[in-house]
Amino acid sequence: MNNIDKSPNANYSNREELFKQKGTIIWFTGLSGAGKTTLSLALEKELLNQGAIVYVLDGDLIRNGLNSDLGFSEEDRQENIRRIGEVAKLFADAAFIVIVAFISPFREGRDRIRNTLEPGRFVEVFVDCPLEICEERDTKGLYKKARKGEIKDFTGISSPYNPPYKPEVHLHTERESVDESLQKILQHLHESGMFLS
Amino acid sequence: MNNIDKSPNANYSNREELFKQKGTIIWFTGLSGAGKTTLSLALEKELLNQGAIVYVLDGDLIRNGLNSDLGFSEEDRQENIRRIGEVAKLFADAAFIVIVAFISPFREGRDRIRNTLEPGRFVEVFVDCPLEICEERDTKGLYKKARKGEIKDFTGISSPYNPPYKPEVHLHTERESVDESLQKILQHLHESGMFLS
Repeated sequence: MNNIDKSPNANYSNREELFKQKGTIIWFTGLSGAGKTTLSLALEKELLNQGAIVYVLDGDLIRNGLNSDLGFSEEDRQENIRRIGEVAKLFADAAFIVIVAFISPFREGRDRIRNTLEPGRFVEVFVDCPLEICEERDTKGLYKKARKGEIKDFTGISSPYNPPYKPEVHLHTERESVDESLQKILQHLHESGMFLS
Repeated sequence: MNNIDKSPNANYSNREELFKQKGTIIWFTGLSGAGKTTLSLALEKELLNQGAIVYVLDGDLIRNGLNSDLGFSEEDRQENIRRIGEVAKLFADAAFIVIVAFISPFREGRDRIRNTLEPGRFVEVFVDCPLEICEERDTKGLYKKARKGEIKDFTGISSPYNPPYKPEVHLHTERESVDESLQKILQHLHESGMFLS
């Protein structure tokens, strides 16, 4: 798909032509343990292999850097998502495909980002998985702590999660393999016209 | 210098090899009216022509987006710069050459960003120009307003500017043409080893 033909002294005023792709935000949302990180890294690897210019906005990287001044109250979590959305928009403006993988529980926060972008430039991937399964997996031991009350405002336990009404891609990780989920995302991306030929 | 040889299905795990450049922050600092915006846009154009992957973090874009919650108090200006530094670092991590053009009056704020990066990845360009000349130019009419007291905490008038001690590039825009300044920056960049062959 994406075969950069780039020679010195060409005048590339338009990064999208150079990269042969539209700047796009791929936004993974879902409960802790649903598989967002696994899938975002698998997607990054596959897109890089296909020749796309892609970057993952990593939750921990952002929490330790840009958003190191924020806590986990509802207000701070909303500000966390707002800033991540703004940074993702800068990357999309720079013609990157930027993958964002955050619980991002509030529909309003996600839709606010979507609504400031051209149609097609915000691809919402709902990493859907029943709470019981996520809690059973409990890869980071966070559900256990949340049940004990050691973590306040934990999404799914003591804080709400608003599923998207019409996500571009709806995954069901309790019954799909990583590769099956990945193929669903890739199919959407290729059909959406984000890769310029 | 920068001639991307990119074919589909190649495994580009390393964006720096792909882009043939090191992720780098080029940070313009100087008084309002010194010529930061003019020079940063001229540099972006020239680097694009040379085949580099480059992005300008624009002050207004950031003020209207990511930092729309911040005012102009000393505290907010420090937070403004901190966040811009963190975003610039993400772009450098994505192997971009990212150009930042902000007054950024506080040495401590600039050095804090520099100190979290590998040597060579923070290129400080001091856009030096005497206050009298900047005030005479007064392209945006801001100095007039600051003298009347209509703008509080205006750098150079009612708020300090700390010049860099050892900037990588030191320009004197009161006596250099835009092209002369540009050539000084380009010479530094090419000698610094940031372009991979």
